[in-house]
Amino acid sequence: MTARPLFQTAAQLREACRTGRWHQPTAGQAPGFVQTNLVVVPRDVAFEFLLFCQRNPKPCPLIEVCEPGDPVPRRTAPGADLRTDLPRYRIYRCGELEREVTEITEYWTDDLVAFLIGCSFTFDHLLAARGIAVRHLECGCNVPMFRTSVPCEPAGRFSGPLVVSMRPLSPGDLIRAVQVTAAYPQLHGAPVHVGDPTAIGITDLSRPDWGDPVPVRTGEIPVFWACGVTPQAVALASKLPLMITHAPGHMFVTDLREAELLAG
Amino acid sequence: MTARPLFQTAAQLREACRTGRWHQPTAGQAPGFVQTNLVVVPRDVAFEFLLFCQRNPKPCPLIEVCEPGDPVPRRTAPGADLRTDLPRYRIYRCGELEREVTEITEYWTDDLVAFLIGCSFTFDHLLAARGIAVRHLECGCNVPMFRTSVPCEPAGRFSGPLVVSMRPLSPGDLIRAVQVTAAYPQLHGAPVHVGDPTAIGITDLSRPDWGDPVPVRTGEIPVFWACGVTPQAVALASKLPLMITHAPGHMFVTDLREAELLAG
Repeated sequence: MTARPLFQTAAQLREACRTGRWHQPTAGQAPGFVQTNLVVVPRDVAFEFLLFCQRNPKPCPLIEVCEPGDPVPRRTAPGADLRTDLPRYRIYRCGELEREVTEITEYWTDDLVAFLIGCSFTFDHLLAARGIAVRHLECGCNVPMFRTSVPCEPAGRFSGPLVVSMRPLSPGDLIRAVQVTAAYPQLHGAPVHVGDPTAIGITDLSRPDWGDPVPVRTGEIPVFWACGVTPQAVALASKLPLMITHAPGHMFVTDLREAELLAG
Repeated sequence: MTARPLFQTAAQLREACRTGRWHQPTAGQAPGFVQTNLVVVPRDVAFEFLLFCQRNPKPCPLIEVCEPGDPVPRRTAPGADLRTDLPRYRIYRCGELEREVTEITEYWTDDLVAFLIGCSFTFDHLLAARGIAVRHLECGCNVPMFRTSVPCEPAGRFSGPLVVSMRPLSPGDLIRAVQVTAAYPQLHGAPVHVGDPTAIGITDLSRPDWGDPVPVRTGEIPVFWACGVTPQAVALASKLPLMITHAPGHMFVTDLREAELLAG
């Protein structure tokens, strides 16, 4: 997280991306605005991918799904263009990274469908705003993420294991964090597991599959939340002819305020 | 609601439907099990209909969406068959009711996709179980439902107004009902409106568009929840070549327990 954000609003940040002035990570920018993962897939698999997200709402909380061919997220950022308004993208072909780019106009066709999926940046901000100590923010590193032995509910060609993020918490913070996050089902909701990592197939907390390791201190309990890396890993494993995502850490920033995602 | 349920479990009720021994409404049967609306649409509109539900989660809380062509709800009632296990169905062609039937085996093809959508029977049971007086249950009639002036978020060919159900509540019951229902986003969640019906385009509470009128007593406030009739009305208005639904009040009963729908 940067100490002082350069951009106060989502629109300012997106405009800087669009005009080529910002290609850096979005953590800490446009504080209070909801940031999302971007996953773009061909139209002929969009139903199956939407079904996968519907069946696995904790790892795949849908913030918006655009109409086929439409690069404008009309509900959450009507003035935005998903082809230019993220700082950095990844182009995958048949499950292999082809290249990283700063706009995807040349790749966009009427055949593509864009999915915006809840992201842990917003999630961490909610916890921190309630005085809950978030270790990887204290350490200035990425949240540790782990592939588990828990299978997602498959849908058509999409299947694979649940990916979780881990935050070590004191018992008091754990109890508050459950309450806070349960109220935000669109940001992964309540934890999926607390305590013994081996119960969900994680053998070594010091070796995350994505992100950075963080220390678990005496008296702390590891708390595991479903992670938005899950749908991206599952889509990658299905080796689609074309898939476009944000580059890690370079998220799409919507006009939604965090409070608008409160359940109810 | 019948005074004493004939069927204690969802499986018993479904078996009686399948063997032709039960073609009556499901209200009050298999207490504690989640009942759902059934909407079956052709595969080529399934993505758009799923998108409509995703964009309008309050009126269209998805309990399960089956794989294309699959009549078995493998996540919520793996032993069931949606072609035979409801007491009564409606067949619509181009938006017109063609007939009411007690099984749909002859209509089923690999081209159909079944949607199970949260239902107010379960919802009313949750309120009543917490001591909240539910007027239409007291009156032994159907909940009053109204077309509003609030548009749903459209998706492809699917668009139309939000339909709401109304329950008159005392201020104390209203406050508790907001809390109870907010915890169950898969059962329409918190109310969408309280008080003045004209604010959402309802001119006469004594003339509901569906169901029966109920009295609003002195000191009571009308409370409006998004209603599962919405997606059915929207699908009907789109005049699909074929659409199959449950007959009103003759719901599909899943193996899910109500408590399993608690948010988090």
